[in-house]
Amino acid sequence: MSEFKKVSRSENYSEWYNYIVDAAELAQHSAVKGCMVIKPYGYAIWEKMQADLDQRFKATGHSNAYFPLFIPKSLFEAEEKNAEGFAKECAVVTHYRLKSDPNNKGKLIVDPEAKLTEELVVRPTSEAIIWNTYRGWIQSYRDLPILINQWANVVRWEMRTRLFLRTTEFLWQEGHTAHATSQEALFETKQMLDVYAAFAENIMAMPVLKGIKTANERFAGADETFCIEAMMQDGKALQAGTSHFLGQNFAKAFDVKFTGKDGKQDFVWATSWGVSTRLMGALIMTHSDDEGLVLPPKLAPIQVVIVPIFRSDEDLAAITVKVDEIKSMLEAKGVSVKFDNRDTLKPGFKFSEWELKGVPVRLAIGMRDIQNNTIEIARRDTKFKKSTSMQEVVPEVVSLLTEIQDNLYQRALNFRTEKTKEVNSKEEFLQVMDAGGFALAHWDGSSETEEKIKEEYKATIRCIPLGNKQEDGICFYTGNASKERVVFARAY
Amino acid sequence: MSEFKKVSRSENYSEWYNYIVDAAELAQHSAVKGCMVIKPYGYAIWEKMQADLDQRFKATGHSNAYFPLFIPKSLFEAEEKNAEGFAKECAVVTHYRLKSDPNNKGKLIVDPEAKLTEELVVRPTSEAIIWNTYRGWIQSYRDLPILINQWANVVRWEMRTRLFLRTTEFLWQEGHTAHATSQEALFETKQMLDVYAAFAENIMAMPVLKGIKTANERFAGADETFCIEAMMQDGKALQAGTSHFLGQNFAKAFDVKFTGKDGKQDFVWATSWGVSTRLMGALIMTHSDDEGLVLPPKLAPIQVVIVPIFRSDEDLAAITVKVDEIKSMLEAKGVSVKFDNRDTLKPGFKFSEWELKGVPVRLAIGMRDIQNNTIEIARRDTKFKKSTSMQEVVPEVVSLLTEIQDNLYQRALNFRTEKTKEVNSKEEFLQVMDAGGFALAHWDGSSETEEKIKEEYKATIRCIPLGNKQEDGICFYTGNASKERVVFARAY
Repeated sequence: MSEFKKVSRSENYSEWYNYIVDAAELAQHSAVKGCMVIKPYGYAIWEKMQADLDQRFKATGHSNAYFPLFIPKSLFEAEEKNAEGFAKECAVVTHYRLKSDPNNKGKLIVDPEAKLTEELVVRPTSEAIIWNTYRGWIQSYRDLPILINQWANVVRWEMRTRLFLRTTEFLWQEGHTAHATSQEALFETKQMLDVYAAFAENIMAMPVLKGIKTANERFAGADETFCIEAMMQDGKALQAGTSHFLGQNFAKAFDVKFTGKDGKQDFVWATSWGVSTRLMGALIMTHSDDEGLVLPPKLAPIQVVIVPIFRSDEDLAAITVKVDEIKSMLEAKGVSVKFDNRDTLKPGFKFSEWELKGVPVRLAIGMRDIQNNTIEIARRDTKFKKSTSMQEVVPEVVSLLTEIQDNLYQRALNFRTEKTKEVNSKEEFLQVMDAGGFALAHWDGSSETEEKIKEEYKATIRCIPLGNKQEDGICFYTGNASKERVVFARAY
Repeated sequence: MSEFKKVSRSENYSEWYNYIVDAAELAQHSAVKGCMVIKPYGYAIWEKMQADLDQRFKATGHSNAYFPLFIPKSLFEAEEKNAEGFAKECAVVTHYRLKSDPNNKGKLIVDPEAKLTEELVVRPTSEAIIWNTYRGWIQSYRDLPILINQWANVVRWEMRTRLFLRTTEFLWQEGHTAHATSQEALFETKQMLDVYAAFAENIMAMPVLKGIKTANERFAGADETFCIEAMMQDGKALQAGTSHFLGQNFAKAFDVKFTGKDGKQDFVWATSWGVSTRLMGALIMTHSDDEGLVLPPKLAPIQVVIVPIFRSDEDLAAITVKVDEIKSMLEAKGVSVKFDNRDTLKPGFKFSEWELKGVPVRLAIGMRDIQNNTIEIARRDTKFKKSTSMQEVVPEVVSLLTEIQDNLYQRALNFRTEKTKEVNSKEEFLQVMDAGGFALAHWDGSSETEEKIKEEYKATIRCIPLGNKQEDGICFYTGNASKERVVFARAY
């Protein structure tokens, strides 16, 4: 089955993750260094994420559009901070043609005569090409706001990659909005952070902290970066989404001005915000266990699997009649159901396979059940199983799906709560970092201190939580004055 | 509004097309040569196409997945015919980093030290990377069939581009399936052609001919290419979708074998099939008129627009009450409705704007309508309008949407029928080509003759229709014997 050995989380969390991604058939490495193949089962989960997010974007007034994959180098470098931030990881197209290799029949070489006069950067993010386009769309306040999202692939050259978490090419959505005022852009930035947080918590069942990044961790080209941060089961943090207040930086770089109601010209205010296939990694690491993937029902491509227990074709036929009934009733309630009637595999094998794939609810039905009018119902999250009457199974499954969704969230929240500690000294700080978890610590507010902490403990400030409690204290690292505790952690 | 001058189809069909794409805000050229920006309204139509097609793919057993954007050159060249076919139009990534230009502060240059040891081709199509992946997925007949589709962007370097019709980057879907037998692969190839034809006719309201391409026009690497061909309003043909029977070519190139039920090893059989944003061009050119875009209701992002006719805020308030009622009732029937209550624009301006954008049904309502319990209903396709009673408007709109969908199809079909002629001589052939249309002509079956005809008349064989009538005849060009008439046309 899997090329990776089955390991438990406690043995080796990182290998466990690789095992789950592989064994649950979510993704694999490709022939292209750092690029992944997202397999059908993994992609089906991503599609569910997309569908839910897309609906939320539209409900908040956004439309989808599509901008080019390539960015001419001269446009890419226009916003200097942004360009500097991404320059080191850009894939660059320099030629537009291959030709037959004269020295090697059947092989191709890059045609030196087809060199581009200007190199094209494969988008690592699309602010440059989009703001260059917006210039032509915006003359007056009447053209604002522009509320656009794009679903796309982006490329950031990574030296060390991990499936879903850090890959050279990944899929994402990037919102790019343009506004007449700073206030409106800031409102948008926060609104989209809320959209992300609601999605993470209600759909992924993954609790997140909403906060602001420090200057060091800010998106290149942003005035302020807001983020949602989640805690994985090894206590490490994962940045699950970001929403950037870009100020007038891109408008200035691309000369995008508008005439206000008062007739005065001003530069346009911008935001951008994105989540990516990285969320797949976050989902896996938040809920899964040593037996395999655990999926929240709202993202499970298959919510209920039905496994027949039979010895003969006649048994299977009799069971199938009953299963078809239950399946139709569940589907009528909007539940996605798979009847695993493969006749070459034993029930035990099927149980393991669907457990590995994280299907939230399993129903099993044999000839004795048919006689007794019962059915076995098992939940993936707690592994609890029981027999129930055939009449009750549909409403029970429906309410169980809600219960599992809630339980997964609550379990992850409890875990985070346990693993989040106020620390007041270097010793306490190190303890929390080594045990895994979030440290709430006073910090003197300087980038220099932040850098030193990062070097010494491999820990970063994940965020300054929104609505953070203000309290006088002293920085655990320098002893300098501090006004609030910030969230430190080691991170993915 | 538009940078293009409004022109009629008869004046200049090509400029008319550019005008429609621009004025209806569907797409525009970008700063990257040959790459387009798909604007929100255009993208909303594409999303509707995607949603419908995706459902059809899933209903026929396919799953979506995602494969890398880049293809290492050595993989790309493995299937020689395919490589040869696309080599001339490949964007090539040669470097993975930019750095500061030491001679030009704030500018970037490609870092010569970050040269890739092997160049990466930006996918023009994904057979190579996918079949290289399938090798790891297929051992036995139990692993077959593999039925996968991918929604993605692809790049084919084009020298002369036209929005939607021929762009360097475009969006598409590409199905890639693997089968144990030739028969099964051929069945799949034809099934997907039928899926495309049903989509084109039932959803796009665009009649298509289903056929087979000649060897000259075949996909590079295919044993047989099936296609659907549509006729545009200038009588030119547009290839709207292709489905390829790839034989064992890619399996052989990538060494993909399976063990059959009989224990014997054989190469796997393949298909691939795709449609792209080119369909947007086909849609526009099939139905639109001199006043603007005409959309079939099934693809219209807005199916009904309601324009209030008012002089005062009080009027608008009274009208709004009534409109809200109608809007809710229509929405309850699954109709998408826009209430254009902008108070800065005159009704006439709004009428023109929604006409330009192809909204199938327009309702207009003023104070007199409120008093008389009436409403004006206008259809975009025939421009027919009438007053109807408020009680009747909802069912009338619902049935009108179906009527418009049918009428657009019928109108396009009648047009194609009129412009399709049997021709038996060079003179007749030239007449049809110059007037625009499909010529059904005997052809001697040789590639050489096909080439000569192409050179002399700029016309190609669009397809040999499926189930074509067999009849003895003589080639209009060479006078040699022929068994059937094939479809010639000038094409996009």
